[in-house]
Formats: sequence, C-alpha cells, structure tokens
Amino acid sequence: MSRLQAFRGNYIDTPEYGILEKFSGYLIAEDGVIRDRRTELPDGWNGEMTDFGDAVVIPSFCDVHLHAGQYENIGIGYDHQLLEWLEKYTYPTEKKFYDLEYSKSIYKRLLRELWEVGTLHFISMCTASTDSTALFMDLIAESGLEAYVGKRNTDYQITTTDNEDTETSYLGTLQLLQEKGEQYENVRYILSPSFVPGCTEEMLGRLGRLAEKTMTPVQSHLDETLSEIQLVKDRFPEISSYAAVYEKYHIIGKSRTIMAHCNYIGDDEIRLLKKHHVMVAHCPCSNLDLGSGIMPLRKLKDAGLEIGLGSDISGGHTLNLATVMKTAVEVSKLRYLANPQESPATIPEALYLATKGGGAFWGNTGSFEKGYSFDALVICDEDTGRLNLQERLEKFIYAGDYRQIKARYLKGVRLDRPCFSE
Amino acid sequence: MSRLQAFRGNYIDTPEYGILEKFSGYLIAEDGVIRDRRTELPDGWNGEMTDFGDAVVIPSFCDVHLHAGQYENIGIGYDHQLLEWLEKYTYPTEKKFYDLEYSKSIYKRLLRELWEVGTLHFISMCTASTDSTALFMDLIAESGLEAYVGKRNTDYQITTTDNEDTETSYLGTLQLLQEKGEQYENVRYILSPSFVPGCTEEMLGRLGRLAEKTMTPVQSHLDETLSEIQLVKDRFPEISSYAAVYEKYHIIGKSRTIMAHCNYIGDDEIRLLKKHHVMVAHCPCSNLDLGSGIMPLRKLKDAGLEIGLGSDISGGHTLNLATVMKTAVEVSKLRYLANPQESPATIPEALYLATKGGGAFWGNTGSFEKGYSFDALVICDEDTGRLNLQERLEKFIYAGDYRQIKARYLKGVRLDRPCFSE
Repeated sequence: MSRLQAFRGNYIDTPEYGILEKFSGYLIAEDGVIRDRRTELPDGWNGEMTDFGDAVVIPSFCDVHLHAGQYENIGIGYDHQLLEWLEKYTYPTEKKFYDLEYSKSIYKRLLRELWEVGTLHFISMCTASTDSTALFMDLIAESGLEAYVGKRNTDYQITTTDNEDTETSYLGTLQLLQEKGEQYENVRYILSPSFVPGCTEEMLGRLGRLAEKTMTPVQSHLDETLSEIQLVKDRFPEISSYAAVYEKYHIIGKSRTIMAHCNYIGDDEIRLLKKHHVMVAHCPCSNLDLGSGIMPLRKLKDAGLEIGLGSDISGGHTLNLATVMKTAVEVSKLRYLANPQESPATIPEALYLATKGGGAFWGNTGSFEKGYSFDALVICDEDTGRLNLQERLEKFIYAGDYRQIKARYLKGVRLDRPCFSE
Repeated sequence: MSRLQAFRGNYIDTPEYGILEKFSGYLIAEDGVIRDRRTELPDGWNGEMTDFGDAVVIPSFCDVHLHAGQYENIGIGYDHQLLEWLEKYTYPTEKKFYDLEYSKSIYKRLLRELWEVGTLHFISMCTASTDSTALFMDLIAESGLEAYVGKRNTDYQITTTDNEDTETSYLGTLQLLQEKGEQYENVRYILSPSFVPGCTEEMLGRLGRLAEKTMTPVQSHLDETLSEIQLVKDRFPEISSYAAVYEKYHIIGKSRTIMAHCNYIGDDEIRLLKKHHVMVAHCPCSNLDLGSGIMPLRKLKDAGLEIGLGSDISGGHTLNLATVMKTAVEVSKLRYLANPQESPATIPEALYLATKGGGAFWGNTGSFEKGYSFDALVICDEDTGRLNLQERLEKFIYAGDYRQIKARYLKGVRLDRPCFSE
C-alpha cells in the first residue's frame, strides 16, 4: 500500500536554467515521489495533508563538492594560495583522520551542519584513510542524508605529508567499493583521484579501469589554478590538456564523472567534457577564498554542460549553499565586466545550480516536477506580506540565516537533526 | 577625579597597515583612554579590573559608508545594476522616510543591528527627509554609538521619484547643521551631496561654500560604476575627471572629505585625493553585489591614501564588517590575478581597514595604542587551545558569527544593546 501525501505551500523551483517557477497550492506525493500539483485538494482526499502556511518552500540543496576531512579548517589559512595552503593546513589536518575517534567527532558535526544549512544531498572527497572513509559512510547512512563518498587517492610526490603508495591506496579503494559500495541505499561510493598532480599514471590507469569495469562514478579536480595547470603541462607535455590526461586514463569517459572548479578550462576541454557528459562542480566561494580565479559559468552553460554548486570546504569558508549561490552570482558579475559576452548569472540561475543542477547527479532531486522526490526546505522568514515570493527568496539567499529553515523533507519524510547510535 | 580601569585580555590590533600586533596582558585606561600596557597589574593597583579570560579582544568596527534609509532593502534587487536598482528599489524605499513613525521603527532596528555586529562608529548618508535625519540623530545619541550623519542632497534629474528643489534641500541641510550640529557629542553632521549625477552645479557650489565656511566634513560617492562616470563626462566635458568636479565646487579640498567606492579612479584623481587628504570608503560587498567593479586597494594604499571599510547597505547585503573584511581580501585576490603588480590584501590589512583605517575619521579609535579610546569587541569563540590567536581571528572573520561577540566597549564603558525612551 503506497503512502499518499499532500503538501500545501508557496513553492519556488527552477525546472529550467534561469526560469523561476512559483506555485501556491498542493503537491501530491506517492511514496515520497511527486505525482501531481493542484490548486485545490482533490475531492474526497483521504491521504495525509501538511500545510506549510505562509512559508517559502524550495528544493533542498545539493552540495556536489566538499572535503569532509577539512571541516575543522573552515575559515583559517586563506592568506595562502592553493598549493601552499594544501601543505600547511590541509594535509596535516587530513592526516588526523587515521584516528577514528577524532574522525567520528568531526563527521558528526559536519553531518549536523549540512542538515542545518539545508544540504540533504552531497558528494564528498574524504581523506586517504580507508577506515575513516568507511566510518563516514556508516554515519551518513545513519543520518539519512544522501551522498556519494570516496577515499582520496594521492600517491605522487606533490606532498610528503599524506601520501600512500599506489598499491595501498588502490587496495583501500577496492575494499571500500566491495564492502560499502552496495551496503546502503543512500550512500554510494565514488572513485576519488585527488588531481593529476597528486596521482601517478599507474594510479590514474588503475582507477580508470575500475571505473570502466564497475561503472563506479568518479570525482576529481580540473583547472583550478594556473600553477596547478603548469604542473600538469610540465609532466605531460605530449598530452594536449589537463582534461585530456583524465580522458587518456579513463577517469573521464567510461563512467559518470564530476570535475570541480574548471576556472581556466579551454575550449577543447569544454568539448571533451560535453562529449563525455561530465558534470562540473562550480565552487565560487573556494575560488574567491583561495584567489584561484572565476569559472566561466555562462560559457560552460552555453556549451550545454550540467553544473552544480560545491562548497568545497575548507577551500571555501562555508557549507551554506545560500552563500555559495550568492557568490556564484557575484563573481559572474565581475567576470562580465572583463568579458562582456559572458552575461552575469541571475538569482534564478543560481538556485537552479544549487538544486536541479547538482541534483542531476542523482537524477530525481532538486525540482518540484512530477517524478521528482519531494526533497524540500520550508523557509519561515519575517517578510511575509511586505515582499513578494521572489524577493523573499533573494533575501534568504543574500541576507538570510539557516535558522529560518523550519523543516527539511527528504523523499516526503521530515528529516530530523541527525543523532547517532554512539 | 579620573576613572582608572585595567582590562586583562588577549589583544589583537593593527597599529600599522598589515602589521598584526598580539598582546596578552593589561591595558590601563584613564577616563576611557588607553594610557599604558603591562604584562602584570601594577603594584598596589586600586582601580577597577576587568578580566576577559581566554576571549580574543579586537578594536570595535568603524563602518564609514552606509545608507540608513536603505536598511529594509538589504538582500533584495541585486539582479539589477546601480542606476536601475536606484530607481526600482532605493528611491521608492527612501521616500517612505517622510513618515517619521516608519523612520523610527527602521532606525531602531538598524542601530540594534549595528551594535550586534560590533560596529560602534559609523558614517551614514540618510534620505532626503530633513525631519527623518534629525530623528535619526536623536536616536543615535540615545544609543550611545558614535556617528556622522547627513541628509542626502539630490536635486538633479537623475531620478523623478525622490528629488527636492535646490532651495528646499539646501535649507534643510542648513537647518540640521544649525540645530543638530552641536547638540550631541557622539553624533555630528556631515554634508552629503548624493553624487555628481544627482546634484546641480548650484547645489554642489552651495554645499562647497558651506563646507569651507563651517569646516563641516563632507561625504559622497566617486567612480563607482562606468555608466555613472559616463554621465559625469557627458555633463562636464571640460573638467578633467569626476574628482575634479568635486574639487572645483569645494566638495573636496576645504574640509575633511570621505568618498565611497573609487573603483575606476584615475591616477590624476588619486593624486587629487592625496593632496586634499580625502579618505576613501572601500565597499567591496556592495561592489560585488551590484557588479560595480573592484577598487584598486593596493594602488590606493601605496599612494598613501587613508582607507576605511563601508558596508554600503543596501548596495551591500550585510552590515557585518567581518564579512566586508573577508570580501575585501577576496576581491583583492581576483584583482591580483589580472593585475600582478597589485598584490592581494591580507587579513591583517583588512582588520586595519575595519578599525584604525576607518577610525581615522574620528582620530582616536580603532587601535589599542596609548592615547586611543578603549573601544573594543570581546570575542568568545569555541577554538581556544586548538587555534592560535591569529587563526581565531581569521575564523571569526571568515566563518564566525556576531553572536560570539560577548561584550562591546566604547570609551571604556560596556555598551548595552540599545533601548530607546519611546
């Protein structure tokens, strides 16, 4: 027997990039999946009914790029650029995750904060610790959030502080994939080579073959900073681009792939990503905080790429995707000043990125269309009456507070603040 | 008989631009003015003693550019650029301030929020309403905050919605200056021509003569956007620059002046500002939110200009100067990518701008040096022990919360959340 629910509310979503759709009325869900929308409750309705009153209801957020092991570093070290920041702050912190008690305390805080800020779906690159990554998957399963998670593979001498040898790193990955890949419905494994400067060819090749054989998705980083791109060029002078290195080793091209940043992406690389249906994780806070650059959002959207938003903590200073949305709009305006052919992003476009755009990695979240999961944030603000629905959304994004999120729904079920069995 | 106080704490300030000074010990104040610093309490001390424990103590913030009448618009309308945003959002909202009951309700909320976020000194351009500006000065006096406030003079046809004629606007200004100019110790009047595109030559000339005669300070806007600069060029083709228009009419050059934005400032204009000791209000949040541009901070500092930070609400989306500091650092990094000779701002530099830099408009706030007023924020964070003092400051700026401010001191007196007599 299926569960029938009606939710009455003032809905805002973005079925298409840049198109804000407003609907006040009832969404009808069956087993958590939206089946219909009505302005009146159907005659003789005998299912459940929830009334969100004058709240604004939007799809819940999808954070498609974050580093769980860097949570504790949020807000510190930003006077350094990427490569020195990695050495001084990131790797020493990630190394602590071999301690599972420490790991657990951080992961619990992280999962609670993700819940708080309304991020119910996320993709995390974890640390090099196999056991810590397994623990994280267990805790996410308990939290109820939806996630893709992978152990970070780094075996090349970009750093001396947190490398594994190729064999250890690969076997840990294989173990996680076998033991945890099918264990949970809401937590899945994603292969996670750190980036070309952090991986041997052997590692890239092995992970690429694994992706091809098991159809496991892959995440990595691409074209974040100029100095990192130079490292790739110096090492692979015969390969035409950074993205082409990933393609050669089947990191791109055989299974579903998501690449973070793409600030300095070339036209050839855009075509390559488009050809292989690679999703891009746009991380504007991180790119501002570390001074990495500005992703050509308009250009990538015009090329037809699917794009989501990533907090990229702790390269980024906040988990709050409302702030990441705001920042995506802001930096696109600066980019527009220097590149008048790339028109700035709008607030409806930013909402799309944070919801349906990133949600495309799951395929059924981020929109209130029929067939989508009822995944929603109920925002209870102070401006009812004074502002229209779009302005209330704008105010929430630019100057709001996650404390205004009164309720979070995932697959039609109200999600509580995560508690853990131990 | 003078009041003697000792305050024990972990102090961070920036006596020089970019130099973070840390001191754990006692600051000794006499009648609210810092007279000494000691690592031990002086022998036989019989004054008052306050111990801030493990908190971080920094100078309180100075917001040198905000628009009190735009408070209610924070967070909305940013898909528009400056001139259309003014017409659609700003002027209609400011027009409501002819209603004094409405004015009072907004001003109270604004003053409470300024207090909350740790801004104890500010400079506000108000609306065109003379009575509302007078009311604001009364309320500020009651709040205990320190401020410069001016009625906005706009009499040129940039907008049809909120202009006065020259005579009415000037006489209102004169009235405020005469009635309110000397009434309060903590609230002073500042002449406030809106900007060149909003003023007739007659208005600029009259206000310039008034500045010269009464030595009243002046605030306005300069070089915020390219379209605004074009308006100035079209109207004054014979004058060499936007700043030179102000100089011609004695808006700059006769009394102390502060100019907001300066995103597109030319070398001649920099020299002109330097020559006349004009302070610059850097408003990076506003410039990002409205997509106006990035001020050449390094260039202006290298030229020896004094610079403070402005929230510029509601061009900017937040009153919180911690966020404005963060944003000043962030946008300077983007500017550096395109202009490698302009090195990015650092966190110590941003702290200087928000405290001693802007504080220079008062002359005795923003630093813990001898002779400065004891104006301080006591920050009670969660990272004692784990992070060093500078990292705790960084975390407060990038990812903190004004709720961590446990106490605010102005002239050695703990300032309470503002209540008003009616």
